[in-house]
Amino acid sequence: MTVNDATSIRVGLLGCGNVGGALLQLIEENGDAVTARTGLRLEVARVAVHTLGKARSPAVPANLLTDNAEAVVNDPSIDVIVEVIGGLEPARSLILAALEAKKPVVTGNKELLAHAGAELFEAAARSGVDLLFEAAVAGGIPLIRPLRESLAGDRLRRIMGIVNGTTNFILTRMTEKGQSFQEALAEAQALGYAERDPTADVEGLDAAAKAAIIATVAFGAQVAAEDVYAEGITEITSEDISMAERLGYAIKLLAVIEADGDSGEVAVRVHPAMVPLAHPLAAVRESFNAVFVEGEAVGDLMFYGRGAGGRPTASAALGDLIDAAANLRQGRVAGLPRPVAARIRPIDELRSAFYVTLDVFDRPGVLEQVAGVTARHGVSIWKMEQLGLGDEARLVFVTHVAEERAMRATIEDLRGLGVVDRVGAPLRVIGAD
Amino acid sequence: MTVNDATSIRVGLLGCGNVGGALLQLIEENGDAVTARTGLRLEVARVAVHTLGKARSPAVPANLLTDNAEAVVNDPSIDVIVEVIGGLEPARSLILAALEAKKPVVTGNKELLAHAGAELFEAAARSGVDLLFEAAVAGGIPLIRPLRESLAGDRLRRIMGIVNGTTNFILTRMTEKGQSFQEALAEAQALGYAERDPTADVEGLDAAAKAAIIATVAFGAQVAAEDVYAEGITEITSEDISMAERLGYAIKLLAVIEADGDSGEVAVRVHPAMVPLAHPLAAVRESFNAVFVEGEAVGDLMFYGRGAGGRPTASAALGDLIDAAANLRQGRVAGLPRPVAARIRPIDELRSAFYVTLDVFDRPGVLEQVAGVTARHGVSIWKMEQLGLGDEARLVFVTHVAEERAMRATIEDLRGLGVVDRVGAPLRVIGAD
Repeated sequence: MTVNDATSIRVGLLGCGNVGGALLQLIEENGDAVTARTGLRLEVARVAVHTLGKARSPAVPANLLTDNAEAVVNDPSIDVIVEVIGGLEPARSLILAALEAKKPVVTGNKELLAHAGAELFEAAARSGVDLLFEAAVAGGIPLIRPLRESLAGDRLRRIMGIVNGTTNFILTRMTEKGQSFQEALAEAQALGYAERDPTADVEGLDAAAKAAIIATVAFGAQVAAEDVYAEGITEITSEDISMAERLGYAIKLLAVIEADGDSGEVAVRVHPAMVPLAHPLAAVRESFNAVFVEGEAVGDLMFYGRGAGGRPTASAALGDLIDAAANLRQGRVAGLPRPVAARIRPIDELRSAFYVTLDVFDRPGVLEQVAGVTARHGVSIWKMEQLGLGDEARLVFVTHVAEERAMRATIEDLRGLGVVDRVGAPLRVIGAD
Repeated sequence: MTVNDATSIRVGLLGCGNVGGALLQLIEENGDAVTARTGLRLEVARVAVHTLGKARSPAVPANLLTDNAEAVVNDPSIDVIVEVIGGLEPARSLILAALEAKKPVVTGNKELLAHAGAELFEAAARSGVDLLFEAAVAGGIPLIRPLRESLAGDRLRRIMGIVNGTTNFILTRMTEKGQSFQEALAEAQALGYAERDPTADVEGLDAAAKAAIIATVAFGAQVAAEDVYAEGITEITSEDISMAERLGYAIKLLAVIEADGDSGEVAVRVHPAMVPLAHPLAAVRESFNAVFVEGEAVGDLMFYGRGAGGRPTASAALGDLIDAAANLRQGRVAGLPRPVAARIRPIDELRSAFYVTLDVFDRPGVLEQVAGVTARHGVSIWKMEQLGLGDEARLVFVTHVAEERAMRATIEDLRGLGVVDRVGAPLRVIGAD
């Protein structure tokens, strides 16, 4: 295929930050190879930015730049829109306008998809054009396409993901270097992995947005970010981590998405969890992401890679862009998710095993009182260890699978016992079911 | 979408063994869900088998069964062919006939693709129909589609895969239970992971066929199984494994596929390798497979899952079948690999770090003689350890990156030294480059 035979596809790029700049560079580096392989020539026709005069690396030819994103979306000579502005507005209005004008859209905007996904998918379906978003979840890792296409014939049961690189970096440092949460966070900030205000990462909100998108793609359920129960890692201590290690677990911040095939309900939450050391997720270190998928036929799968960063994310967006361009040429549309309303199971009804630590006054009968409380709530203790701490002792136990509601009531009652000085935040344990 | 609106796709299934039976069952279990999601109704119209009278689980309606596979391929009412017979003939002729008749083909036949891939891809391109083969490499793991589509805009550098579950099971048992190769092989056979004649697995030939297919898909290079240098695991000892562990490595059988972007050459080989314990491939246990991909933009990726088994492999084939059916309905074809001839770099020219063990007679000057040999061949020693063995001592060293040719010559000269009693098979070391 020579360049002359190639179909030219004119791309309108909205946003030229970290990901947008990397995407321009990738198209420059690999555009010819893409043309040779696919017969498609990707031509970036316009680049809409917020501030025209800003220095950019790589440099963008001045005649491509504009600060009028709406004009790019409405330009009839532009075939495909790539949105990498991020945030809710103006991204939402621009994408809707592009879809309305029957232009396929590639986006990496997880906030927008997690908050207004249903509206966007609806608009794409109405116009019969592609809305592709591989770059929105787990950066460069191919996840959305395998979930939608490769596993289209299987029934997925559960998806567990390490989908936030910042918190995985912090937990890795706490585990491998014995750092405190604050020390590890400071290092993550110094290295540029964490923002100055780390709330969205460390409180699990970024992971919750990704969990909502995964639930939509994997289970076809309308789930928005605010439907996702999220618990962060700020209360994890070095002692939790070393005790977990002793018991054969690593602590990871997980997004867990489950479907109950019979009821049609989905359960979606983000929380730190104890993962058995032999589980593949336990070996995911530093700022890497990984998504573990349990399918009825396929068994266990894991997708691992860089969950963030300009070039990895741009690689995912470029894969989507080539797909959208190829579909456009062939007058075809990728199968779009058409999520339907589903009951989202409240966190209280979910079931896990739990790891609990109690600081107790070292008196005879303590264990009996504690066991009495757990038994009263139907929570059964699987293993237990008592560690001396001078006057006090620490009681560490892992329960069998129990309902969140029962566990919460148990913790409350344990806090009320005179012999109990302090109850640590309970941690959910994976792999006991 | 109701069943009445659905497009019916008539499927001809060739072969009804482990994978074919699982595929029938999956279509029965999940067919309605697939219809609801895609508007496609997959109807298995004919099932060609070798022996008609055989008992089958799940049972296949007698009116579907035939022992005339050619008639299935030539039946004008059949839209898509799924080939899960395996082996070269008659699979090759049947697939060629189906493609000739402009029927899309889904196959899980790695031997055939690794030996006659170029011919099949050519035939599919001539007819303008799909030839999909996700099930041929790494069982249920979505790998071919991500390589072809998600990473279409990136330049891949190297792919390293654990693509044979039998040998990974054996190496896991040797590592975790201290078993010998023979003991672990016997256990693999007892559990049904290894065949009575385990040659294809333990000599790396099965992995070599998969490596050839991966090279074709990832680098567009015509590589056949016989082009792949293959070294198996039969000479790996428990001592190698415990020494590797002491040095911080796990021993894995790897398929390594590299492209040299500048020269257009590819390098493809299968051999046991020492993998750093912190590398994600080191954590792949039991009979699981994993493929590690290094891309210029995307960075490191890994795809992990079940590399064999009826249901995982059928899950991959069903994903392809849905894709082929959707393309058929839309008059579209998936981007086909059009591999071109490429120079396959001979093993002698490849470069690795090496781990070498020497049993030497414990005399003064031994080390000097050994170091003299390595220096003469330009092989530089990175780290070295000497272990007493009574009269003899064992010398263990890891080299810096060296050419295979130089290493081979070094080993030969070391064998010729009077002070050297025995030289173990050298092992390549990953992660030193």
